[in-house]
Amino acid sequence: MRLRNKPWAKEMLAQYPQYVIPNPEEYKGKWSEVFGNTNPLHIEVGTGKGQFLVGMAKQNPHINYIGIELYESVIVSALERLIKEELPNLKLLNVNANELEKYFTKNDVARVYLNFSDPWPKTRHEKRRLTYKTFLRSYENILVDGGEIHFKTDNQGLFEYSLMSFSEYGLLLKFLSLDLHKSNFEGNVMTEYEEKFSQRGQRIYRCEVKYLNEK
Amino acid sequence: MRLRNKPWAKEMLAQYPQYVIPNPEEYKGKWSEVFGNTNPLHIEVGTGKGQFLVGMAKQNPHINYIGIELYESVIVSALERLIKEELPNLKLLNVNANELEKYFTKNDVARVYLNFSDPWPKTRHEKRRLTYKTFLRSYENILVDGGEIHFKTDNQGLFEYSLMSFSEYGLLLKFLSLDLHKSNFEGNVMTEYEEKFSQRGQRIYRCEVKYLNEK
Repeated sequence: MRLRNKPWAKEMLAQYPQYVIPNPEEYKGKWSEVFGNTNPLHIEVGTGKGQFLVGMAKQNPHINYIGIELYESVIVSALERLIKEELPNLKLLNVNANELEKYFTKNDVARVYLNFSDPWPKTRHEKRRLTYKTFLRSYENILVDGGEIHFKTDNQGLFEYSLMSFSEYGLLLKFLSLDLHKSNFEGNVMTEYEEKFSQRGQRIYRCEVKYLNEK
Repeated sequence: MRLRNKPWAKEMLAQYPQYVIPNPEEYKGKWSEVFGNTNPLHIEVGTGKGQFLVGMAKQNPHINYIGIELYESVIVSALERLIKEELPNLKLLNVNANELEKYFTKNDVARVYLNFSDPWPKTRHEKRRLTYKTFLRSYENILVDGGEIHFKTDNQGLFEYSLMSFSEYGLLLKFLSLDLHKSNFEGNVMTEYEEKFSQRGQRIYRCEVKYLNEK
């Protein structure tokens, strides 16, 4: 994503602690306190400008959502959407995806969404891909047993890599579409990227994988 | 594949017992006797007119190959190729893929090739797909430990299904290309179908999966 510098972003994020949780480590193991209910929690790692998660939160009021995004100048757009929509079941965290286990513990999360993650195509950057094994381990450490990752991307190389990484890690592939927009998958909520790329006729790849209890 | 009836095919197959093994059940557990060496054996299930396996046998003289094809009027074309090429490391079996375990036993086979297998797109025909779990079990029962399936197809639905079936069965996905002819995969030998479909600009999907010893 091209990052426009927004010097005012940091300040604005701080002004909305009801949406952008300022002290997330305090809620580790007790996110139900933040939402005021015990509905399942789904998180999106790399939530960008938030179009996907805002759409999901509107579509599924009985699921709680947290969007995680490192870049202030990006997450501030998600905040602007959230201010307009006033969704009680969506919160944002302006933190690094490397540190999920600082903010969540085992069984906190029912599902992880990864959408159009940075492909990091160079082999020497493999460890930065959000489907690299160390990330898969950190998701496992915060997910419920049988928790799932739902992943979509237009990037063929990242998708190929990720399916192999999931397999290597022992995850069960339970849904796969190699051309999402021509499939009969229902209820798809598009990200900003997805709208742009699919308008250009590019394929969108999507899969769902599950952590098996036997592991 | 459109089947042209060739009433003379059966007779011709019987005339070349050195190429089309007439009594394969006799060699179960001792295929090295047929080839006169102990080189690894790779089989192709559904070998069609044999272009792939003839190409592979020429490219890899130190691998033994067996092509398995049920339809006499199709396998006879593979025989014609083989008569012309005189390859000592390629044999044909005119038998049903359902009955592999009649002809092979554990450790007989090092690799199974599936190329452009019939997609059987209707759900009620799932059991006929060569990547359905009963077939995966029969391959396991004739393969060496750590044996592999190498699979390619132009059929998106069959490929999606197969990756899920492999995952469900616990196979390790060790190679994946979602657009083989635009990848840097080397040494690809094309099948008849592959030449036709790729000329039309259709994508070819390819993967390699491995049976894990831990199972």
